[in-house]
Amino acid sequence: MSKLISGKMLSAQINKELRNEVTQLKEKGVEPCLAVILVGDDPASAVYVRNKKRTCDELGIKSVGHDLPENTTQYQLENLIHDLNNDPSVNGILNQFPLPIGLDESKIIRKISPEKDVDGLNPLNAGLIAMGQPIFISCTPYGVLQMLKRSNISTSGKNTVVLGRSNLVGRPIATLLSSKGWDSTVTVCHSRTKNLAVITSQADILIAAIGIPEFVTFDMIKEGAVVIDVGINSIEDKSKKSGTRLVGDVAFEEAQRKASLITPVPGGVGPMTIAMLMANTVNAARLQNGLPRLNI
Amino acid sequence: MSKLISGKMLSAQINKELRNEVTQLKEKGVEPCLAVILVGDDPASAVYVRNKKRTCDELGIKSVGHDLPENTTQYQLENLIHDLNNDPSVNGILNQFPLPIGLDESKIIRKISPEKDVDGLNPLNAGLIAMGQPIFISCTPYGVLQMLKRSNISTSGKNTVVLGRSNLVGRPIATLLSSKGWDSTVTVCHSRTKNLAVITSQADILIAAIGIPEFVTFDMIKEGAVVIDVGINSIEDKSKKSGTRLVGDVAFEEAQRKASLITPVPGGVGPMTIAMLMANTVNAARLQNGLPRLNI
Repeated sequence: MSKLISGKMLSAQINKELRNEVTQLKEKGVEPCLAVILVGDDPASAVYVRNKKRTCDELGIKSVGHDLPENTTQYQLENLIHDLNNDPSVNGILNQFPLPIGLDESKIIRKISPEKDVDGLNPLNAGLIAMGQPIFISCTPYGVLQMLKRSNISTSGKNTVVLGRSNLVGRPIATLLSSKGWDSTVTVCHSRTKNLAVITSQADILIAAIGIPEFVTFDMIKEGAVVIDVGINSIEDKSKKSGTRLVGDVAFEEAQRKASLITPVPGGVGPMTIAMLMANTVNAARLQNGLPRLNI
Repeated sequence: MSKLISGKMLSAQINKELRNEVTQLKEKGVEPCLAVILVGDDPASAVYVRNKKRTCDELGIKSVGHDLPENTTQYQLENLIHDLNNDPSVNGILNQFPLPIGLDESKIIRKISPEKDVDGLNPLNAGLIAMGQPIFISCTPYGVLQMLKRSNISTSGKNTVVLGRSNLVGRPIATLLSSKGWDSTVTVCHSRTKNLAVITSQADILIAAIGIPEFVTFDMIKEGAVVIDVGINSIEDKSKKSGTRLVGDVAFEEAQRKASLITPVPGGVGPMTIAMLMANTVNAARLQNGLPRLNI
């Protein structure tokens, strides 16, 4: 029976460290500030934005909301970002996605100054990860790394299999874990991979990020493996009042019988992401004030 | 006994196609132009630059040399690049490395406009590769892809092992081959990998890019594998007049008894790189003139 890696607990630990750090920064006259842009009325986006702002409040980070109407033009949004890029009191810029139809996300991502791109979405930041010199790691990959680090899981020389090759999750996780310092031997699997179970069952560390509910089953897991489940999928469950429940990309109950360590869903990678956004914001403030990066 | 993948032959084929393309571009009033910067007196760099300019000539691409003295300052070099970035008659900028001691290569790389970065070194271009939207692929990885493509080697669903995780070669090759369209299941191995021979001998396609002479031996290769040797190492050979000869990262003679296809050294990946620089220059000219990318 495996032990749980609790994202709830680890993110609370990180937030506590960041709160102390923010207090110390303020004593030096530096107040970290995150600009949060929300365009339109998507209710899920509104919830995400509220949670991010609330965590800012809890940590003593200033958050400045920019709520724009559904009919905002590309020009108006780019203009706002231009102003925020040039505002020295703003350290990080977060634009909640998805944007309303008609607005070009990838142009917006590239418009945000790489120095303020605390979401780590700018291709320049992806490139710096690929080149081993990351400024900001996007929040989900960063959260996965922290879970491994803070659970004292040694990655060097281990066989790590990443299921999924998305720009935002699978790809950066694979690149980071195979880079110096992490030193894993990483294999990236995807929909075209043949003999998938043969490959995954050789993994000392298995990271699932494909967005298919309970895809990873008992026979795909090596005895004693570490299993990190990045998936968050809503499936039908008539026993619930809402009619649905959240599951990961891993069939949790059966995986738990084989893994040594495993992340739950919910309460695993999910809670880490906001904590890592906060960490990036604090580091943005440090870097913009000539202070070295915080090694969390 | 394996068949050879000849970089000499394939690069000649690509150059021929590019020559035709340049002729057609000129009929439309577009003359591709590459600015070639050489700082200092390094004899090897002088040879590389001469070869690149000569290939430009052969293809009808205009090359403009900028030979700067050894004592050029960072400021002067950045100023030149600034001017070339803003010169609409220049499509591509190549700065031959290494630079003399005291000049900051990574700053120079980032100074070159991503739209003119035909060497594909700017981190933004690395990021666009990671995100599946490359503008320019750096010349060695691009050459490897062309060798696979033009030898009709199917990569989809194949196990590909990349030996080496360098920013310039191993990493982008791994990323590209696991991305959509290429669809390989890619494992990146490096100095910290355990049981290396077990992993490499499962590879349908084995790409060696670690810079260690004749590192890959008979027992590390799967029967019938495709072996791409990116290494170019000079080793002692008293039978030669020069006292040295060039070998790859693969022990060629023994590997040849097991591989189905293999690249020689010299005459393998090496000759491909200049051809791919030419391809990037032609594409820079096309993109800057509103024409779609050439699918070579």
